[in-house]
Amino acid sequence: MLELGGETLILTHDMMAEGTHYLPGADMADVAWKLVAVNLSDLAAKGAQPLGVLIGYSLGEGDGRFLSGLRDVLNEFDVPLLGGDTVRIKGPRSMGLTAIGKATYIPVPDRRGAKPGDVIYATGVMGRAMLGFEGLMEHTATYNRPTPLLDEGQALAPHVSAMMDISDGLLLDSWRLAKASDVSIALDSAAIPVADPARHNDCLRWGDDYQLLFTAAPGTPIPVAATQIGMVEVAGPSPLCLDGAWLGDTSGLGYQH
Amino acid sequence: MLELGGETLILTHDMMAEGTHYLPGADMADVAWKLVAVNLSDLAAKGAQPLGVLIGYSLGEGDGRFLSGLRDVLNEFDVPLLGGDTVRIKGPRSMGLTAIGKATYIPVPDRRGAKPGDVIYATGVMGRAMLGFEGLMEHTATYNRPTPLLDEGQALAPHVSAMMDISDGLLLDSWRLAKASDVSIALDSAAIPVADPARHNDCLRWGDDYQLLFTAAPGTPIPVAATQIGMVEVAGPSPLCLDGAWLGDTSGLGYQH
Repeated sequence: MLELGGETLILTHDMMAEGTHYLPGADMADVAWKLVAVNLSDLAAKGAQPLGVLIGYSLGEGDGRFLSGLRDVLNEFDVPLLGGDTVRIKGPRSMGLTAIGKATYIPVPDRRGAKPGDVIYATGVMGRAMLGFEGLMEHTATYNRPTPLLDEGQALAPHVSAMMDISDGLLLDSWRLAKASDVSIALDSAAIPVADPARHNDCLRWGDDYQLLFTAAPGTPIPVAATQIGMVEVAGPSPLCLDGAWLGDTSGLGYQH
Repeated sequence: MLELGGETLILTHDMMAEGTHYLPGADMADVAWKLVAVNLSDLAAKGAQPLGVLIGYSLGEGDGRFLSGLRDVLNEFDVPLLGGDTVRIKGPRSMGLTAIGKATYIPVPDRRGAKPGDVIYATGVMGRAMLGFEGLMEHTATYNRPTPLLDEGQALAPHVSAMMDISDGLLLDSWRLAKASDVSIALDSAAIPVADPARHNDCLRWGDDYQLLFTAAPGTPIPVAATQIGMVEVAGPSPLCLDGAWLGDTSGLGYQH
């Protein structure tokens, strides 16, 4: 965050690496889309309005596709490309993107503000990106071309006590939010909407959906579609309690990288 | 550039790749320094005051040294680290850095404003980074830990018609400035201060010195130490004329990557 001329700037920088964040042979147009979208999703979780991006791109296979996907995603979310640089390197590639946004509400929401007694909510349905990754046509776009919830984040910012985007799995990100807020979160797994009920547990642990996770005082009007999935409590034995059982650590809770 | 709350933001993103911008086995503390310094040098050439940086870092050998160099350079130029991301990747690495600055003078100087009749100047001495790269102790710091000319850039901004930093060699960058301004530049090579007169030609073609190249109307007071190295003319047969001979293209003029 940066204060400037009465405005508050929000800045994010996320990278994607071949082999870690995308597979060799992936359509580079999707890689470009996702690289921008994950950064815009960070801005969304801060209630920020995007002002522009700068890109650090490693040249190689599929440069034309990358440019095409980059154009698509910047057009779709009406974000200007402000600059960047390219390099050529042997071996697996990595790309970086900086996104700059303007806070629309002060204080800027972050993951540290959840209070005991607050309700915890999630937008959307968990596990769609997982099913898309696995090849289910209906969900491939969710995995390949996620939508940053910019309008939702801005609408929520004045109402939430804490907010973050769900990039690494609902359980892991809930743990992180609880830890950052020095509280515990008790989740009711049956309340959490999932894309495949037969794989409820997997859906709670897969990331890449880029939904919003947020807390608000009870009775707060919630201006977007979201599901109440649990409660915030005083810090207990661990940051996360799932269906009444305290989780001991973060292993198996989500995507850790 | 980005207008926000009455301020003008200047944003740069430069990358460094192993094997291209630094050799495998280089001290990663120097790599960190240089990555920040080259971006701050871009801000300097715009007369901007740095507000912060975000880094995209590929983990690997020398992470501790990298962090140490990063701390050094950010302390030295009093610039906060605002964010970043890391990835782990097999093979050669690349790093990216975004620097954000605030314009101190409007219009922000760029390379497009040189006018026929203007004088062209350069700060400092050309070729020190070259000698440092070649192992001359006296100049290694110039190559490994360049100093972005932030104060000089800000002092010059109100007085110049065009300005850029010399990253790829004085001749090549002069060509670029002339081309961007749609003029020709006539350089007097004997007037250009070089670190090794026996290798005058090499010194004019080596980059990495991060001095400032700028033009100003004749008679303009120049508030920093700088040398008059030539004149701006109406566009002639090519963008660059060296000691009375028009250069046909940019081959051999500097570091092209």
